[in-house]
Amino acid sequence: MPAPPQVPAGGRSTSGVVSLTTDFGVSEPFVGLVKAQILARHPAARIVDLTHGVPPFSTEAAAFWTERSHRYFPPGSVHVVVVDPGVGTDRRLLAVAVDDQLFLAPDNGVLGPLAGLPGAKVRAVAASTLLELGIREPSATFHGRDVLGPLAGELSSGEVPFEKLGSPCDDWVRPGWAPPEVLGKTVLGRVIIVDHYGNCFSNIESQSIVPYEVKRVSFGGHALPWVRTYGDRPPGTGIALINAFGVLEAAWVEGSACRQLGLAPGSPVEVELGRPPPGGG
Amino acid sequence: MPAPPQVPAGGRSTSGVVSLTTDFGVSEPFVGLVKAQILARHPAARIVDLTHGVPPFSTEAAAFWTERSHRYFPPGSVHVVVVDPGVGTDRRLLAVAVDDQLFLAPDNGVLGPLAGLPGAKVRAVAASTLLELGIREPSATFHGRDVLGPLAGELSSGEVPFEKLGSPCDDWVRPGWAPPEVLGKTVLGRVIIVDHYGNCFSNIESQSIVPYEVKRVSFGGHALPWVRTYGDRPPGTGIALINAFGVLEAAWVEGSACRQLGLAPGSPVEVELGRPPPGGG
Amino acid sequence: MPAPPQVPAGGRSTSGVVSLTTDFGVSEPFVGLVKAQILARHPAARIVDLTHGVPPFSTEAAAFWTERSHRYFPPGSVHVVVVDPGVGTDRRLLAVAVDDQLFLAPDNGVLGPLAGLPGAKVRAVAASTLLELGIREPSATFHGRDVLGPLAGELSSGEVPFEKLGSPCDDWVRPGWAPPEVLGKTVLGRVIIVDHYGNCFSNIESQSIVPYEVKRVSFGGHALPWVRTYGDRPPGTGIALINAFGVLEAAWVEGSACRQLGLAPGSPVEVELGRPPPGGG
Repeated sequence: MPAPPQVPAGGRSTSGVVSLTTDFGVSEPFVGLVKAQILARHPAARIVDLTHGVPPFSTEAAAFWTERSHRYFPPGSVHVVVVDPGVGTDRRLLAVAVDDQLFLAPDNGVLGPLAGLPGAKVRAVAASTLLELGIREPSATFHGRDVLGPLAGELSSGEVPFEKLGSPCDDWVRPGWAPPEVLGKTVLGRVIIVDHYGNCFSNIESQSIVPYEVKRVSFGGHALPWVRTYGDRPPGTGIALINAFGVLEAAWVEGSACRQLGLAPGSPVEVELGRPPPGGG
Repeated sequence: MPAPPQVPAGGRSTSGVVSLTTDFGVSEPFVGLVKAQILARHPAARIVDLTHGVPPFSTEAAAFWTERSHRYFPPGSVHVVVVDPGVGTDRRLLAVAVDDQLFLAPDNGVLGPLAGLPGAKVRAVAASTLLELGIREPSATFHGRDVLGPLAGELSSGEVPFEKLGSPCDDWVRPGWAPPEVLGKTVLGRVIIVDHYGNCFSNIESQSIVPYEVKRVSFGGHALPWVRTYGDRPPGTGIALINAFGVLEAAWVEGSACRQLGLAPGSPVEVELGRPPPGGG
Repeated sequence: MPAPPQVPAGGRSTSGVVSLTTDFGVSEPFVGLVKAQILARHPAARIVDLTHGVPPFSTEAAAFWTERSHRYFPPGSVHVVVVDPGVGTDRRLLAVAVDDQLFLAPDNGVLGPLAGLPGAKVRAVAASTLLELGIREPSATFHGRDVLGPLAGELSSGEVPFEKLGSPCDDWVRPGWAPPEVLGKTVLGRVIIVDHYGNCFSNIESQSIVPYEVKRVSFGGHALPWVRTYGDRPPGTGIALINAFGVLEAAWVEGSACRQLGLAPGSPVEVELGRPPPGGG
């Protein structure tokens, strides 16, 4: 059974869990050093790698995974996102509290989908707060280790109230991902993520097509049968389905849709519906 | 010194350790979400990534690593294996208790070698058990996150007795890995795994050749000197040895046997023995 | 705030944190098995992957990362380095205590930079110590799992005093990394590491050029502007800077310097200074 979240001195409830989402890869000690600094501040933190395989500098992919993943964590978790092409410049750090979770990232769009949710509180992290916490003189190129790690450690310990992080702000960077176009009964989107299996995620959300009946789906010009799960067709078949992250996906049963259908991020996706959704152009 | 395993309310001893073996790769948050759901159910779980580099859909490789690895874990650990091409269909989930360890996986052969061990207890996980634990309405494509993660969390907390998981079963899927052929003094096997270094694991077990004296070994037609360890030959030499997982391996000192000898999974392996092993054809 | 390190029975203070640096990759369960053996000895250990992406057999890269990373860990942490081409031969294991941290590795140069620091204590791990701890009969090819893991577990528990590990030694293997050459006002180095982003680390240290004014930098014959951080130039520009690990680096803003400039480990690096550093040839 889920344990009740601890309520420490600072009054904010915390699970002690810190998730990390970066484009650091796993070939160098970049991730390990962020963890070292979290543990140096909060020895009891339990750190979960969400992913370090965000394509380098892709704030869009980081924004997608962060928004789609956080609801599976215990309430009171801290989520750190470090995809940070602007490191060392005067770009701000942002903290967002929403859905009983806390998020920390550069203000470059990665927290855009969360900051825009109803009830979200957004603060710009103040330099004075960092100083008070003894987080100072960061390197010019690695704020994950020098700023975000230590700050996440402090936050996950529950002793720093969210309100203390800095002033409320509402001019945070909006996410860059364009929604699909709707033309009558047709929805036009694109591939946004190709995963490890070669499954191709589109930017078309379940709720924007399923209620209107899916008549025909194509990815990169290839029509694909509309199914519920991978095992609904024999190995070696291309299929389309709503995946576990709530978007339309092209897959190849026990194979790679990316390779078999020649798809890549940006490839066009087309859905024909039984009736036009409201608001379609 | 090893700590004594804790014995919680439910009566089953548990180490609190959960190992994960999947074909999820590390590019997306698939593994992180399984961990989030384990921690949501059992905040004190200590999670160890056994490997997420199982070749996609290779139930054989997952079966090999799981069987060869579990004995190094503290007693009372829970091992989750998610290589699951049948996700979303009516394939069952299996739980196996053996060697003071507990295993959880789809019934597709990955637990075959363990379920066949003397003393192994095997249960088919019942839908009613999942419901009682509040594990419901999984997605059609990600039961690692929606079912196996939460269930592993509950099991690692020690509060759910093994017997409560479902009915005993003995018609579990057998492992698919063919054993080597024995023709008189000759053992004919094949390469089953090529590791990160390019070392090539065969399906020939130590105990099936070492007692009968190894006279000659070849991998893919290349005869290789029979040695004890990598440092027994100078860099740039091909060798054959019994590796740390108990099988015959081809290696290249400080290099890649796979690349140097043109080997791949399926490549033929031949061993000539000093005398025929009992039961050879 | 950092928690005070625990002081257990054995008298040595310990953070309970164990870092792992290997060339094991993440495709097989090699790392997971080392962790299993650490937890079997010290259930409360908190294990941090520093990196498993050291190029196979590169004791030089492992030495660099270990030396540059340890200061970010809580005092009393244990660092295990397993890049071990000599596994199974009679090469020794070394333990080094320095900077309030403890290191464990084969005696092949990976601990050279640390063993050479002022105040470092170096011991050769004695076979009798391993026996007393019940660490026996290792495989011929996987001492990470069979020796270093269990020993790190014992050390991180704080119950084994450093002095008990073996006799002091001063004939440990020196690191192999050649320092750059200095010819008057010119410093000649080379690329030593290419990271996940394609950033190219050189063997030229910050303190050997910054005080003498950097006039001109080239990597592989390409002159690059000298900047403070990545965001100082627009995307698609080659730059040179001191990176977060204290060495001169070539980068490409939001791209790969390795690919854009055709660099690789060994590529020549040249710096022209405003005045010759003391001791230059």
